[in-house]
Amino acid sequence: MKRRIVIFDTTLRDGEQSPGASMNIEEKFALAEQLARLGVDVIEAGFPASSGGDFEAVQLIAQKVKGPVIAGLCRALPEDIDRGWEALKGRAQARIHTFLSTSDIHLEHQFKRSREQILEMAVAAVARAKGYLEDVEFSAMDASRTELDYLCQVVQAVIEVGATTVNIPDTVGYAQPAEFGAMIRALTERVPNIGQAVISVHCHNDLGLAVANSLAAVANGAGQVECTVNGIGERAGNAALEEVVMALRTRPDAYGGADTGINAKEIYRASRLVSDLTGIMVQPNKAVVGSNAFAHESGIHQHGLRAHRSTYEILDARAVGAGESKLVLGKHSGRHAFEAQLREMGMELAPEQLARAFTRFKELADKKKEVSDRDIESIVADETRAVHEIFHLDYMHVVGGSGILPTATVRLLRDGEPIEQAALGVGSVDAIYTTIDQLVKLPHKLVDYTVKSVTGGTDALGEVTVRLTDESGRVYLGRGASTDILDASARAYVQALNKLAYDHETRAGRVTPEEAQGQP
Amino acid sequence: MKRRIVIFDTTLRDGEQSPGASMNIEEKFALAEQLARLGVDVIEAGFPASSGGDFEAVQLIAQKVKGPVIAGLCRALPEDIDRGWEALKGRAQARIHTFLSTSDIHLEHQFKRSREQILEMAVAAVARAKGYLEDVEFSAMDASRTELDYLCQVVQAVIEVGATTVNIPDTVGYAQPAEFGAMIRALTERVPNIGQAVISVHCHNDLGLAVANSLAAVANGAGQVECTVNGIGERAGNAALEEVVMALRTRPDAYGGADTGINAKEIYRASRLVSDLTGIMVQPNKAVVGSNAFAHESGIHQHGLRAHRSTYEILDARAVGAGESKLVLGKHSGRHAFEAQLREMGMELAPEQLARAFTRFKELADKKKEVSDRDIESIVADETRAVHEIFHLDYMHVVGGSGILPTATVRLLRDGEPIEQAALGVGSVDAIYTTIDQLVKLPHKLVDYTVKSVTGGTDALGEVTVRLTDESGRVYLGRGASTDILDASARAYVQALNKLAYDHETRAGRVTPEEAQGQP
Repeated sequence: MKRRIVIFDTTLRDGEQSPGASMNIEEKFALAEQLARLGVDVIEAGFPASSGGDFEAVQLIAQKVKGPVIAGLCRALPEDIDRGWEALKGRAQARIHTFLSTSDIHLEHQFKRSREQILEMAVAAVARAKGYLEDVEFSAMDASRTELDYLCQVVQAVIEVGATTVNIPDTVGYAQPAEFGAMIRALTERVPNIGQAVISVHCHNDLGLAVANSLAAVANGAGQVECTVNGIGERAGNAALEEVVMALRTRPDAYGGADTGINAKEIYRASRLVSDLTGIMVQPNKAVVGSNAFAHESGIHQHGLRAHRSTYEILDARAVGAGESKLVLGKHSGRHAFEAQLREMGMELAPEQLARAFTRFKELADKKKEVSDRDIESIVADETRAVHEIFHLDYMHVVGGSGILPTATVRLLRDGEPIEQAALGVGSVDAIYTTIDQLVKLPHKLVDYTVKSVTGGTDALGEVTVRLTDESGRVYLGRGASTDILDASARAYVQALNKLAYDHETRAGRVTPEEAQGQP
Repeated sequence: MKRRIVIFDTTLRDGEQSPGASMNIEEKFALAEQLARLGVDVIEAGFPASSGGDFEAVQLIAQKVKGPVIAGLCRALPEDIDRGWEALKGRAQARIHTFLSTSDIHLEHQFKRSREQILEMAVAAVARAKGYLEDVEFSAMDASRTELDYLCQVVQAVIEVGATTVNIPDTVGYAQPAEFGAMIRALTERVPNIGQAVISVHCHNDLGLAVANSLAAVANGAGQVECTVNGIGERAGNAALEEVVMALRTRPDAYGGADTGINAKEIYRASRLVSDLTGIMVQPNKAVVGSNAFAHESGIHQHGLRAHRSTYEILDARAVGAGESKLVLGKHSGRHAFEAQLREMGMELAPEQLARAFTRFKELADKKKEVSDRDIESIVADETRAVHEIFHLDYMHVVGGSGILPTATVRLLRDGEPIEQAALGVGSVDAIYTTIDQLVKLPHKLVDYTVKSVTGGTDALGEVTVRLTDESGRVYLGRGASTDILDASARAYVQALNKLAYDHETRAGRVTPEEAQGQP
């Protein structure tokens, strides 16, 4: 017998709350499209009342992305729920997700409200949302530390006024699988109207147990799992979508035949996109999507593997869309071959993006001779991440080495006008960034700088990721790819500065901590 | 009531089998010393029969590292056990760990032996080890896919001949927590002499459940957990030591008061050392040791956190020795201040290492003005990783940029004699590496290149990690730190080439896949 588990993806909401992971609206839209291809049932697209940017992103995704239910997070306040509805209205498959803390520790230290007051607020919020649409989810924040009798009472009350999903978050990552499973079991046995709603779980990974807790809940009656791609999210993150999905698919016997509607072949691509957009890399030993997840070093295991795959491997790399990078094009490949390759990789580009990407491909093929699918992915990512280009890198000359005073000469175009400068630094990249800073004149701080090579070989493309913060602490990610690390470093820096400059011209303020209340 | 759980660390054995993670003997020794400071009960130092290098490392660690039991892994073959004893003898706290597959899938596809033959081999191996020492562990490889009756029979038989620890590995990461816990429970109930041995578990992370499975086993009677720092190991790795330890310490109520003897304040330092030595980085959202594990982005949670720490955080960064990098020294700091700082950070250097590290510190302080504890750690790591320096980087001049043909001029000293060359490349780093290749003339391939900044700011130290393979596929890791990324890139490359050159002069061959049999 098959049990269908609903996958509620919160990469765009809880995932985006990871330190430094903020995405702009174009990036959020691109990720939502990939989540739809992945086949998630629900996309939590944002927290509409938290900022103008979040509102617009939820609205855009609700209007344009086909397939999944689109959810908006709302505090249990009338103005939040109204604002959530504003962002979602017009879409048939929409959900309002409202939340409120139920644990004594939160009530006492943060909300300064009684259990009775909280219960009233929860019921009022669900009722208000229900006035707008049918699909309403209620989250009892910090449920795993909530007294069980009171939790049952809250769950029963919100279902009575129409909640169709009740979420039981382990907000601080405190739960252990056996007890968390027992808690879900108790809800199914003790809440009389529980059959009228789907039980959901939302687990955090502070002790490394988010996936195990989610699976224990599924085994004990939960019908929805909230998770993120690569397990990103606040602190140690959320349950990793790919691990929950592949555990159920590998061991349906252990979960009463439970399965999801996920198209597993899109997992690897979703993983790369999330790590690319957020700058949060995936460790090599990460389950399912790490670069070593399917690799074998020990001679012994390799021997066993040759003899019979299942002796040492229970997952197949191809099942999640992973595999070796392949050499696909060479220096004689023309535009038709390039376009055909993009189509095969499922990438759609606007004509001007295609033209720029093709030029970059030809430049790379001249240098590298053989170009892999990963190289193409990296070039395309460089050219399609829509950045409003206020500054453009036009020319750069750098001298560096050992025992040499590093010096950079840079020409930028600012709104098309050339500006030039030379400066020295404590290193080659510092010389470049100091020179650019003197040209751009926007206060900021570099908080992170990483480089990785896209493939092996000394002629590989290098991908540079930088993170800047402005004076208010907002984070801007820039990314650049080039066979020259100095060129890639400059591109990444200019991209991040373009985002910062554009954002300062346009962005509305976020909810400040003082105005806010709590999230699962 | 407190139950003491034995922590068996296999970072040096199973962890070292991660693709590309191989360490030399000096690196293994440095890690073993840190594991002793961390307070692990058992260090599995290697697999003595697998290679001359492994043998020497186990022997050195058995002779020099104070505190933990030192274990050597041995196949269930007389020659392996004899070789293991050779490496360990002379140490009072030593363990032979012998292993053999027990699952039908392994017996049929790899070993081509009957259950009866396997049982005889297991008993003979334990008996032979017992002739050498008291502390003998037997692992039933692929136990989680072994028929339970047969597993009970094997466990009973090896305990009868003196096994003091019986290990139940989930070799392929197939088990789910509830069933794995039930399996351990069944062993405690069905094996009559089980009270004479400690039950151990060794879980792999293919579905993200290694830690949860280990904890489920502890809840059901296991007294030893095998794990690795940062959860490194083959494929998706092993159970992460730091997660198992902190879950038990945070929730002793859920595990009958079980606790370990780990000195948690050494966890963060052990984590950084392992990632530094193996080049396997830790993702920001990794539980307990990730850079975001204790960070808070959402304004809501920050507000809660200010109100009362436990509202949103169950672990304290200081408990695991983590925390902000601190500015500790400046350009006017002298040698005494530098030495005092090293002592405070628990670092002991030989006089000539100290002299080199101090010179590097002064150079850095001249450039950066303020030097953090992380900077000092990085410099010291650069200077203390003993590399037999055949090639030394003496001078380098590089020109690069955008629209410029990157060119490098390099002078190396080979055994003290200057050799010089200039070459161009498709990028600045490629120009450097091509020039060095022309000077060094050793066949190899660059398989990985990454850079990260040690702290924020454009004047930060950059740490470059490169991985080379030689013609036989052996991996060599090089690491370099400098404020100039070109300088750091050259240092890392030369270090890896020095390791390769030295290894080719000295290293004995490893067991080939064909000669080998299997590992938990």
